[in-house]
Amino acid sequence: MTELKILREARRIIHNHISYTPILYSTLLNEKYGAKVLFKCENFQITGSFKLRGAYYSAFKKIQRTGKTSLAGHSSGNFAQALAKTAHLMGVESTIVMPGNAPEIKVEGVKRWNGKIIYSENSPQSREAKLHEFINQHPEAIYMHPSDDMDMIYGNSTAVQELIEEESDIEIVIVPVGGGGILAGAALASKNLLPKIKVYGAEPSGADDAARSFRTGKIVPSVEPQTIADGLRTQLGKNNFPIIQSLVTDILTVSEADIITSMKDIYQYLKIVIEPSSAVPLAVIRKNPQLFSNKRIGIIITGGNIDLVNLAQIFK
Amino acid sequence: MTELKILREARRIIHNHISYTPILYSTLLNEKYGAKVLFKCENFQITGSFKLRGAYYSAFKKIQRTGKTSLAGHSSGNFAQALAKTAHLMGVESTIVMPGNAPEIKVEGVKRWNGKIIYSENSPQSREAKLHEFINQHPEAIYMHPSDDMDMIYGNSTAVQELIEEESDIEIVIVPVGGGGILAGAALASKNLLPKIKVYGAEPSGADDAARSFRTGKIVPSVEPQTIADGLRTQLGKNNFPIIQSLVTDILTVSEADIITSMKDIYQYLKIVIEPSSAVPLAVIRKNPQLFSNKRIGIIITGGNIDLVNLAQIFK
Repeated sequence: MTELKILREARRIIHNHISYTPILYSTLLNEKYGAKVLFKCENFQITGSFKLRGAYYSAFKKIQRTGKTSLAGHSSGNFAQALAKTAHLMGVESTIVMPGNAPEIKVEGVKRWNGKIIYSENSPQSREAKLHEFINQHPEAIYMHPSDDMDMIYGNSTAVQELIEEESDIEIVIVPVGGGGILAGAALASKNLLPKIKVYGAEPSGADDAARSFRTGKIVPSVEPQTIADGLRTQLGKNNFPIIQSLVTDILTVSEADIITSMKDIYQYLKIVIEPSSAVPLAVIRKNPQLFSNKRIGIIITGGNIDLVNLAQIFK
Repeated sequence: MTELKILREARRIIHNHISYTPILYSTLLNEKYGAKVLFKCENFQITGSFKLRGAYYSAFKKIQRTGKTSLAGHSSGNFAQALAKTAHLMGVESTIVMPGNAPEIKVEGVKRWNGKIIYSENSPQSREAKLHEFINQHPEAIYMHPSDDMDMIYGNSTAVQELIEEESDIEIVIVPVGGGGILAGAALASKNLLPKIKVYGAEPSGADDAARSFRTGKIVPSVEPQTIADGLRTQLGKNNFPIIQSLVTDILTVSEADIITSMKDIYQYLKIVIEPSSAVPLAVIRKNPQLFSNKRIGIIITGGNIDLVNLAQIFK
């Protein structure tokens, strides 16, 4: 299959199982930021984030290829719920390795869909080790990576596919970058559907491993990232990095204060609940008027899963 | 004109100027509350609340009748912005009496639409006096009441008209009650469009003047109301009370803790920003399963204007 055919297949396969999310905007917010910004609202997606798109398509393809009957992955965040929900939709089992300090709300989100939880230590190494131990003992289990997997990237691309199809006159797409799955998906959607669109990554300066990877040409590990944007603390992978390198215009960084300012603006002007990661692209627009002034820009609001106590902490 | 014709006229007149707001639901929220709840989201309305509906229609009719050329009212809340925006849309002037302690965000909302602000003392009496003083000195100004006015009630009814037209199989409508404008509007919409629908008012028990008025048959004043639902601290008026008395099934009250619980649920499940008043109807559903269990219920989310510092205070 050509890449375009794969992207279209992903759209078709998720179509009946995943929400077609709305695109919102605010005239007053546009005035304030000096740009025409369209927000594709994956906070309204089932399980509250875009991750279900990649998880569903990836699981579908991997079950088709292998005939295996259960899904296994590790996550402290949105991927955990997406994986459990995917398994529930497909009538297979799911096992998710989660750190012992995972927020109760995420743990509940997994249990709701009958996901089996294995607790690990809090380090990424411990999670990875526990997951491989489980998979070695359970040959029927499919290893599901949260971002660095071509099926996952194709699945994630559907969010930007929908955005581009509905708003074909956008000039720029900006998405947050953590593991790189949605950024690589955005880049592939743009390349295949509307190549004149420029794609930017948006990253907290306290977790700027992707920006540094982009500039140096090799993957820089994410070491002790410091940011409230908890979805963006992970690092790029070998599958999505080459896509990002060849198709993305730039990765721009913003401070924590900038992220909080834009997060507040999204709450007040758009009246939607988002997690901090989703505010990073808007913050990038405000800090770079030379690039974005008066442009028509699409942003993916990647998710809306935030603990309300954390929210209170941010807004107090 | 018959009442039905007036309601239809209100729909037609506001149509091109007011947002047709979306109806949202959450399967998980429905499971939790044991009912099928449809949320008509006036938090997404221009100026962030349903008040613009009544303000626009009322101003339109009053300008038509009197030929006067400016609007005047008093408000510490959503009506202030709605009035300023209405005047802006119609190309006339607006003057709003606001208490000196009005939150900065509301003051800004008025200034944004070139509304002229007159500050009063914080008591309702002082606001009323300042407004009458202004109107006496300005014969070209139209007195605009925020809720107790038939034009306002017809305008507000359009939110429930849209809800009923789109979701004709709802059995119950529940709306918050403060001044009674949206409750009377909901009752008139139901009576004229789908009379089998039961209409309930929802009120904080710390500001239960409407519930007591409903039971005793005469308007009970709102004396020192104690509730975070700041939009519901006002009392019923002589125009909306008879409509409410004859058409509303009941007015039910809930505690502050109940309101906060349902407010958190709306943030977490629906991912929308609402003000506390808008959570009261959902709280009423949870406290009255004997009335609402398994029913298909429409709720008006009346507004989304909340100061983020207050929000942090509520969620901490």
